Amino acid sequence: MEDRKAVEAANRTFYRALEICNIEAMDEVWLHDENAKCVHPGWEMIKGWKKIRESWSIIFRNTHGMQVQIEDVSTNIGDEVAWVTCVENVTTFFERGLASTPVQATNIFLKRDGKWLMVHHHASPIPVNLPRQFTHTIQ
Amino acid sequence: MEDRKAVEAANRTFYRALEICNIEAMDEVWLHDENAKCVHPGWEMIKGWKKIRESWSIIFRNTHGMQVQIEDVSTNIGDEVAWVTCVENVTTFFERGLASTPVQATNIFLKRDGKWLMVHHHASPIPVNLPRQFTHTIQ
Repeated sequence: MEDRKAVEAANRTFYRALEICNIEAMDEVWLHDENAKCVHPGWEMIKGWKKIRESWSIIFRNTHGMQVQIEDVSTNIGDEVAWVTCVENVTTFFERGLASTPVQATNIFLKRDGKWLMVHHHASPIPVNLPRQFTHTIQ
Repeated sequence: MEDRKAVEAANRTFYRALEICNIEAMDEVWLHDENAKCVHPGWEMIKGWKKIRESWSIIFRNTHGMQVQIEDVSTNIGDEVAWVTCVENVTTFFERGLASTPVQATNIFLKRDGKWLMVHHHASPIPVNLPRQFTHTIQ
């Protein structure tokens, strides 16, 4: 139960770092490892903490703030690996307006020295009002 | 090393089941559990093996075959949880043509009674030739 609470807290901390666009807060959340991976919605996969950090820096520079609401959270705990799925309701403020979209996320955490750290983030846009007949294939 | 090979084999078996559009082969790959989850490219997340199975059945009914080539495979092993990331190059044949697209996948496996079973599949389209200036935000 302690691990579950700790993983859920780590997941919330990640979204808080995203919301406040704070790269130092991201530093605290992630495992600083070559093997870390990140898929931002609509981006190619980024590999390794260094490049992941750069991508967050770019995102934070290009936004004037974000609101992030998390729902439908499901947490799964192993001995040293945990994963969380959730829906991110992200509203992004740009210089000339805002954009809002629901995003499906899979977040994987590793336990290192008693602390759960993000090692994998896969986020992809959720279709909105897509007619069902267009969703009955793999593509 | 045995676990790594077993997980990589389980991952290949999943894509073979996809390629031959065989639901019984999918039965063998997945953990039949309420907690299993699946995100097909462009679909909402599906929860629970029963509904996941239905989704594969629908996909298989609506395609006249698939070719699936896997590349950029990365495997990560924990005690009882493993995850694999890879790029799926999926060509789908429909009644009136075909569609081809690269897909980024995150696959999570659980070890149950000595066998690695898929418990989570998150697949999302990879943008093709998207101008970089459009990829510098979270959305």
